[in-house]
Amino acid sequence: MFQFQCDYTEGAHPLILKRLEETNFQQTEGYGNDIYCARAKERIRKLCKAEDADVHFLVGGTQVNFTVISSILRPHQGVAAASSGHINMHETGAVEATGHKVLTIPSEDGKITAEQVRALYEAHWSDADHEHMVQPGMVYISHPTENGTLYSKEELTALKRTCTALGLPLFLDGARMGYGLASEKSTFGLEDIAELTDVFYIGGTKVGALFGEAVVITNPNFRRDFRYLIKQHGGMLAKGRLLGIQFDVLFENGLYFELAGHADALAMRLKEAFVKKGYELRYDSWTNQQFPILPNDHIKKLKKDYSFALWETVDEAHKAVRFCTSWATKEEAVDALIRDIEAL
Amino acid sequence: MFQFQCDYTEGAHPLILKRLEETNFQQTEGYGNDIYCARAKERIRKLCKAEDADVHFLVGGTQVNFTVISSILRPHQGVAAASSGHINMHETGAVEATGHKVLTIPSEDGKITAEQVRALYEAHWSDADHEHMVQPGMVYISHPTENGTLYSKEELTALKRTCTALGLPLFLDGARMGYGLASEKSTFGLEDIAELTDVFYIGGTKVGALFGEAVVITNPNFRRDFRYLIKQHGGMLAKGRLLGIQFDVLFENGLYFELAGHADALAMRLKEAFVKKGYELRYDSWTNQQFPILPNDHIKKLKKDYSFALWETVDEAHKAVRFCTSWATKEEAVDALIRDIEAL
Amino acid sequence: MFQFQCDYTEGAHPLILKRLEETNFQQTEGYGNDIYCARAKERIRKLCKAEDADVHFLVGGTQVNFTVISSILRPHQGVAAASSGHINMHETGAVEATGHKVLTIPSEDGKITAEQVRALYEAHWSDADHEHMVQPGMVYISHPTENGTLYSKEELTALKRTCTALGLPLFLDGARMGYGLASEKSTFGLEDIAELTDVFYIGGTKVGALFGEAVVITNPNFRRDFRYLIKQHGGMLAKGRLLGIQFDVLFENGLYFELAGHADALAMRLKEAFVKKGYELRYDSWTNQQFPILPNDHIKKLKKDYSFALWETVDEAHKAVRFCTSWATKEEAVDALIRDIEAL
Amino acid sequence: MFQFQCDYTEGAHPLILKRLEETNFQQTEGYGNDIYCARAKERIRKLCKAEDADVHFLVGGTQVNFTVISSILRPHQGVAAASSGHINMHETGAVEATGHKVLTIPSEDGKITAEQVRALYEAHWSDADHEHMVQPGMVYISHPTENGTLYSKEELTALKRTCTALGLPLFLDGARMGYGLASEKSTFGLEDIAELTDVFYIGGTKVGALFGEAVVITNPNFRRDFRYLIKQHGGMLAKGRLLGIQFDVLFENGLYFELAGHADALAMRLKEAFVKKGYELRYDSWTNQQFPILPNDHIKKLKKDYSFALWETVDEAHKAVRFCTSWATKEEAVDALIRDIEAL
Repeated sequence: MFQFQCDYTEGAHPLILKRLEETNFQQTEGYGNDIYCARAKERIRKLCKAEDADVHFLVGGTQVNFTVISSILRPHQGVAAASSGHINMHETGAVEATGHKVLTIPSEDGKITAEQVRALYEAHWSDADHEHMVQPGMVYISHPTENGTLYSKEELTALKRTCTALGLPLFLDGARMGYGLASEKSTFGLEDIAELTDVFYIGGTKVGALFGEAVVITNPNFRRDFRYLIKQHGGMLAKGRLLGIQFDVLFENGLYFELAGHADALAMRLKEAFVKKGYELRYDSWTNQQFPILPNDHIKKLKKDYSFALWETVDEAHKAVRFCTSWATKEEAVDALIRDIEAL
Repeated sequence: MFQFQCDYTEGAHPLILKRLEETNFQQTEGYGNDIYCARAKERIRKLCKAEDADVHFLVGGTQVNFTVISSILRPHQGVAAASSGHINMHETGAVEATGHKVLTIPSEDGKITAEQVRALYEAHWSDADHEHMVQPGMVYISHPTENGTLYSKEELTALKRTCTALGLPLFLDGARMGYGLASEKSTFGLEDIAELTDVFYIGGTKVGALFGEAVVITNPNFRRDFRYLIKQHGGMLAKGRLLGIQFDVLFENGLYFELAGHADALAMRLKEAFVKKGYELRYDSWTNQQFPILPNDHIKKLKKDYSFALWETVDEAHKAVRFCTSWATKEEAVDALIRDIEAL
Repeated sequence: MFQFQCDYTEGAHPLILKRLEETNFQQTEGYGNDIYCARAKERIRKLCKAEDADVHFLVGGTQVNFTVISSILRPHQGVAAASSGHINMHETGAVEATGHKVLTIPSEDGKITAEQVRALYEAHWSDADHEHMVQPGMVYISHPTENGTLYSKEELTALKRTCTALGLPLFLDGARMGYGLASEKSTFGLEDIAELTDVFYIGGTKVGALFGEAVVITNPNFRRDFRYLIKQHGGMLAKGRLLGIQFDVLFENGLYFELAGHADALAMRLKEAFVKKGYELRYDSWTNQQFPILPNDHIKKLKKDYSFALWETVDEAHKAVRFCTSWATKEEAVDALIRDIEAL
Repeated sequence: MFQFQCDYTEGAHPLILKRLEETNFQQTEGYGNDIYCARAKERIRKLCKAEDADVHFLVGGTQVNFTVISSILRPHQGVAAASSGHINMHETGAVEATGHKVLTIPSEDGKITAEQVRALYEAHWSDADHEHMVQPGMVYISHPTENGTLYSKEELTALKRTCTALGLPLFLDGARMGYGLASEKSTFGLEDIAELTDVFYIGGTKVGALFGEAVVITNPNFRRDFRYLIKQHGGMLAKGRLLGIQFDVLFENGLYFELAGHADALAMRLKEAFVKKGYELRYDSWTNQQFPILPNDHIKKLKKDYSFALWETVDEAHKAVRFCTSWATKEEAVDALIRDIEAL
């Protein structure tokens, strides 16, 4: 049985485990005030070319999302997001639990545009009764999106420009950021993200770490007292160094990008195989998630040897499914899958 | 200048003011523990044929909505509602501010169906990752809806049956209930609403009172400690008798229904005039709100002498607008408006 | 049976009812955007000598308290208050329901001092783990306090100076403000409160109105978008003019102060009678609430003809009780009570 | 420099790291639905003699506290706790952020009694205005407490009996549970805790794990949908097996108790040394935290070679301090410290 269900089925890259072992009996201060966190933060600041950014390490993505969003919004404000956005669909209303509405923007592929943001904003402010409606207070995007798609530098620049013009902070969810940056279609790097957003995070959980997300706050307006928010929301790990050590390893010699590149390359092989076989793709993804539309009987056959996710019913005879590769996916699993696709 | 902007532009029916004056120097206990509240509650229970229902008086509709909803849901649950529902659109995220997501159901006319509720429920529970999504916890409907439309007894019965089968409490927002019950197309009465919902409220603000909404909790499961919730959410009026007195007057001799009937009759005259003139109606409303689609220049002309609300841009040359009548609307205002419509 | 239970047992001053009647059929815009609100706001600004202050009318005190506090604090901050403060004791956790801790300061008489505020602040910031504790974010005081006591101008000035130095907004709950300003021991006026606080409110409910509290925001930092907050928290009355009309009447010709003076004068007569009779007073109140400590059998006797509140058990044989006068208390009720006290 | 600052300065017991390594490339389902979690849950159920209890693994203690508390309380209820309770002092208002007040009970040593709980409850319900106050909805205790003290079986039984009689669920915070159970003064075991509480958790972070707390819900009323709550509050680890593996190792062969016993034994040696030297102890702790009261100059001397926490200023010349041992504390560190104490 080969696993393509998701990108968090294994532990961590062995170098991380090794480092955890080597440092295991060192005594460090708790709550992220240790030298490993300090070193990892410094590495991230350098990679982002954002010398004065604040970097914080949290445990998971949902936690980051509601912590960041509730730290920025005032009580009457909401966060604009694609209707398919993770905060709207798969976080059990965590943002609402902090008191804020998710203002959804329809999206076919998971991305939203500068024009849509402007339209949402103007619809609010042009309404005579705007005080009776939730005020747009910030914008949330994912990169890559939940559908594996990527923003281009032009799109991101346009979004940021619009957000700045409208006074809306832009927050980028990078739970799978590595797979985006390593994609052959990527048009920008970490330093561009740092420049074109107000806050973002670099996902570790899905890209080689046991767990952990690195939040980077570039806009000085949103830095104040953020550690209080982390603590209040249960995101402040007592042994904070576990996060620092992991990110230190991931960004020491480019391991993060290497791992992501591995997954993307394997995903491209899968993509090619699906297309060659004549399957349509639900989304045109150039990252580690692939969404072919398969006949139900082919799904049934593949399910015998491979785990993967059912994504969406397309019609009575077809479903879109999701195959995920990851930093840990083995070449031979992909070889086998491709052979079986070809044989369908 | 005649006012058709909304149904809360005047004070209260003179009988209410008279009664407030007569009782002004009586000394009563505060917070709704007075004889007027007791009497008004008893009247409402009788009209509803719900002898053991709990009745509470709150000040306004938004307050009722978030107080009731947050008293019923557990933290991970959301309330299903038409996307046009007042709680979703015009309450500044008051429900979200109590921690709960509004789970929207698309609706053309403001109503939702039993089938839609079932589909929403099943979509949730059939998803393998349902714990990652907000759980549907109750259903909110408005009667009449924000678009003036009415549920039929069959529709309401089907909704209730489905809700019961799925374990979802049904809450009915009756901010304009009088205008629904008095409509020539109404197929049910207060006692049916009491039977076919778990909680509902009877709006006073828009039907003759200075302010005030009467919440009726028929389902015993949702009665416990409700007064705490009212207090916590700022809805417990110190001089609670002001609410009791108003509802006592409104339900003493059928005044409530009389006032609503007056408004509906005038609205039907307007409706006829719009239709006769050849205007399309955005919604087929048989209550006090009418939504004709007018050419922009006609809107401009009418705006000189009448206030009314712009509802929706239909195309470059047309807009849907809203004319409201109320318990206080004068016959001559409607006469004048009809003459001017005919003259367009 | 004479009522000294609380200061909200009657309706409103007759002039208010009269004005409501006179204006009853005028058609005005909803939600406080009417000429009566505008006029009342202007009167209040002038009285406060705060020409550019924002004034808003809400329905009740609890509503004002949690709306103001949650509009100012960030999520990790709390509000400092006397442990006897209304927000800590008698609002069913309304402030906590918006997500914020009440940081209590011990107080014998209901007042807190500048030194206590500074100590609370310093205790927080000097703790190495301050991020693990709620950060003091603002200060709440009541004037008069829940115990009828008054701040002196020196005390209020010291509080404000300390708050400013520490970056803590000062919010004054004036639910009974009239009774404070009209007291023979009052050392300041409305314009001083406007100068020495960042936000405060002038209570109408307990001083002659049917209901209603006038919030005055003098600090420009806290004005933005306040109407959204009012709406979200259910405090935006559809027929907002009802609030405007009441405050217009109260502040037209000094009625507010006259009514409060009446209550205070009667309370002073009661105070004198208690003291003369040899009773101790639980608090040294110079406003409309009096707290004598009575033997249990005297309480029993007085309970036959007078309603009043049991406040606190002092010892097995004595209780502190509360007698309230109000704008509506009749001279003869006080005469009778004094006679009966003397006869005990 | 030897570390006695806290009990989370090292990584994890080597067996845990080893097991993480051995299982690293296994592919398992996410979110705690894996065989390691299943096995660890089974072990815990057996140890607790609670065959049908629900067991969940979360990342940290603050997270557990607010997740459990907000899953049990209705919006108008609060949680009773010692004023020194972790939820009241050191979680940045996390409980309040979910909308609930912490109802504090004064406590000298960190424990609360059945009588205090009953008094709090009765004070609430005997007040005529109880609806204006937060209703006690559950009780929170820590074992060992934040001060290292222990409940006796009699005390815990009395607490539970009272809670049951009053309808208040009892929740036990076991962040340091191991150190309590392994204490020479412990009068009960895990199965007693399971019987005498409704929910409790077994802390891993401070007793040998990298991180992780095992929540045990014995009362069936509080089991429903708990996983939604975990997800909503950011506590659902994607690679949930990391938690399962750790608790599996800790409870496989009694490692958990062995590690705790090690720390307690070393703490007893420290205690003896302090007492022998004539220092008073701030609390009479028989667990891994010791709180001697030291002269300021002795503190200064010891600070050169040992890290430990300043706890409380006792008088001008003395402070209470805290020395923590842990599963990882080395015998030689304690030897050295005792020598230096003797030499003071």
